[in-house]
Amino acid sequence: MQISDLAERAKTASRVLSTATRDRKDAALRAMADALLAAGDDVLAANASDVEAARAAGTGEALVDRLTLTPDRLAEMAQGLRDLALLPDPVGETIHGWNLPNGVHVDQVRVPFGVIGMIYEARPNVTADAAGICLKSGNASLLRGSSSCLRTNRVVVEALRQGLESSGLPADCINLVEGGHEVTDELMRARGLVDLLIPRGGAGLIRAVVEGATVPVIETGTGNCHLFVDASADRAMAMSIMLNAKTQRPSVCNALETLLVHRAIAAEFLPAALDALTAAGVTVHGDEASRAIDDRIVPATEHEYEAEYLSLDLACAVVDDIDAALTHIRRYSTGHSETIVTADAANQRRFTAEVDAAVVLVNASSRFTDGGQFGFGAEIGISTQKLHARGPMGLTEMTTTKYLLSGDGQTRA
Amino acid sequence: MQISDLAERAKTASRVLSTATRDRKDAALRAMADALLAAGDDVLAANASDVEAARAAGTGEALVDRLTLTPDRLAEMAQGLRDLALLPDPVGETIHGWNLPNGVHVDQVRVPFGVIGMIYEARPNVTADAAGICLKSGNASLLRGSSSCLRTNRVVVEALRQGLESSGLPADCINLVEGGHEVTDELMRARGLVDLLIPRGGAGLIRAVVEGATVPVIETGTGNCHLFVDASADRAMAMSIMLNAKTQRPSVCNALETLLVHRAIAAEFLPAALDALTAAGVTVHGDEASRAIDDRIVPATEHEYEAEYLSLDLACAVVDDIDAALTHIRRYSTGHSETIVTADAANQRRFTAEVDAAVVLVNASSRFTDGGQFGFGAEIGISTQKLHARGPMGLTEMTTTKYLLSGDGQTRA
Repeated sequence: MQISDLAERAKTASRVLSTATRDRKDAALRAMADALLAAGDDVLAANASDVEAARAAGTGEALVDRLTLTPDRLAEMAQGLRDLALLPDPVGETIHGWNLPNGVHVDQVRVPFGVIGMIYEARPNVTADAAGICLKSGNASLLRGSSSCLRTNRVVVEALRQGLESSGLPADCINLVEGGHEVTDELMRARGLVDLLIPRGGAGLIRAVVEGATVPVIETGTGNCHLFVDASADRAMAMSIMLNAKTQRPSVCNALETLLVHRAIAAEFLPAALDALTAAGVTVHGDEASRAIDDRIVPATEHEYEAEYLSLDLACAVVDDIDAALTHIRRYSTGHSETIVTADAANQRRFTAEVDAAVVLVNASSRFTDGGQFGFGAEIGISTQKLHARGPMGLTEMTTTKYLLSGDGQTRA
Repeated sequence: MQISDLAERAKTASRVLSTATRDRKDAALRAMADALLAAGDDVLAANASDVEAARAAGTGEALVDRLTLTPDRLAEMAQGLRDLALLPDPVGETIHGWNLPNGVHVDQVRVPFGVIGMIYEARPNVTADAAGICLKSGNASLLRGSSSCLRTNRVVVEALRQGLESSGLPADCINLVEGGHEVTDELMRARGLVDLLIPRGGAGLIRAVVEGATVPVIETGTGNCHLFVDASADRAMAMSIMLNAKTQRPSVCNALETLLVHRAIAAEFLPAALDALTAAGVTVHGDEASRAIDDRIVPATEHEYEAEYLSLDLACAVVDDIDAALTHIRRYSTGHSETIVTADAANQRRFTAEVDAAVVLVNASSRFTDGGQFGFGAEIGISTQKLHARGPMGLTEMTTTKYLLSGDGQTRA
């Protein structure tokens, strides 16, 4: 099917969904969970085919693992849908309301976008997750997953659509987008039909969408996250935050990638840090100054300060002061999460004011940059752009607003 | 100068501006107003050259009028800058703040975007207005006005930069972008250097920016605004709102373009409406049903339901009921401002819920879709997109947000 036809259907369905009550949407989410579990054997069989094909194509084990569904993972997908039903409905919230001097009343209220396109990689859990978050926020979805997950996604989406229909909402609220690269291009340029596009995946995928789209995009970017250990830092606190941010889950965007240590404490802090990091299996890549202090540090190239490792590797540099730390961060940050450990109030104030990032942390681990940790209950991604949403995006960020004006005949003088 | 060099300078200046106090920004705005008035003779002389060149090039009188500065208009530009100094600073507002269960405190605070590019037509007042609004909201500006206004803009921007410098803020907070179309293209693709692009002008200009930009854009769109006169409408109220919305200032985006009249009252309402509209110099272009009622109505083509007139012309159609009105609006609306006049609570509720537009009005004139009327004090444009800002955009919409997390050593379990 052409994207334009699919998007028209989704748009028509979205009109019904946009005014659906919370009760109805929550019933649909529970019915979707039921239908997904009922189709469990078919989902797992389709997934086994996808996994087999991926292995045959020589796909790496990390990607195969993300693609693979198990009964437990399927149950988590269904539970995710049920959990969404427990969250408040963002639609209908009055954000501001006031009277104009002439008595016209103005309300700014939250409303759904309409149709949201998701472009993502070979992770079948994203299919259910994105469909559910879009539905709860009153939006129809166009789901463009990876072709290597297509067999799984077909069965998952069919089950979700059955659940929707059984609850009385149009099946076309959830749509799988199939086809080649030209279909992705069409989706990215479907202005007027698709209200918002969210790419979710690696840096290459996100860049391609941002460069190619004429539909409004929210960029869920990469996290080249820094930790600056100030001279005044509590050493034990800095060590604990560093280890947590680097090693608790190294493959995610809020993991630590670069450690900046104030020169005044580098000779004391780095050897202790290296003891702990080495014990945790972390390889540290550092500049000359850091290597002069601890020879377990291997040489860092410029590239290592620029890129996300997403692994048990850590870039490291010794900096003269907070100005040098701010300059380094300004140069290499992807604007995701930046952390200072300090006991100095002035440095805390400067760091939070001057660092230009979605999340700036003082004396806490960057692993808290997360919709679940923030208490959002659901997260569609973490925005590193400045337009519309910045940082973890929950249901609220999946809505737009509308001004409602009501009067009794007022005209403009 | 290359855009990349200009944008780098603006970015450097924006770092100083982003943490400038309100006192300092307000002093700068007043100094900019003083400098603009001090350069008044030079501005008017440069403008006279631009106007002469535009006339020689055969530019229409409406465009020449927008291009022309007079001492009064110059005084208004300066006063606009002074008025901005009286408005609250949007930067630093805490939107939400809460504690995570582990004691980490989260604040979501308003911060400037950084560097904002404006692409606009031959209106020199926009130069001062946009520069001032960007400055007050803590953003450096790259001002890309029309080449036909270049002589004027050069003198205006030079004066504004002098004002900035005299107040102790970097002159590079305000920058004029000169050069050919390739410079506009470069500006639209300066990702990482320009944080936001706002096109302001006609439909063609806005479409070109939306299609060509990879920098995030806020679309300030056209207004094909409808008025639906329901069967239950107070006739006098409907008449008064119709006349005001159509004739009070026909050239603007919130002016009425299409009148939809419920069939049950069309035979009564239309002749009276035609009396009033004809007396006000309005030509009404209608469908067969309306022309059968009043032969002063000339035939409407499909195009006339699609386009903005921005003149003393009005499209008109008779509709069977609210469903037909909603269908017509869904088909032709540009999502700007849509109005119902009704006494029926159920129809009011349906209209406000189902119409997908930035502003939906009940029993009030669409001319109220305006930042000044909303009480914003300043307006950079009216957004018809759904991302980030929708409807009139004031200072608040010129900011993004940042999450600040502070703890005492918390790590993630």
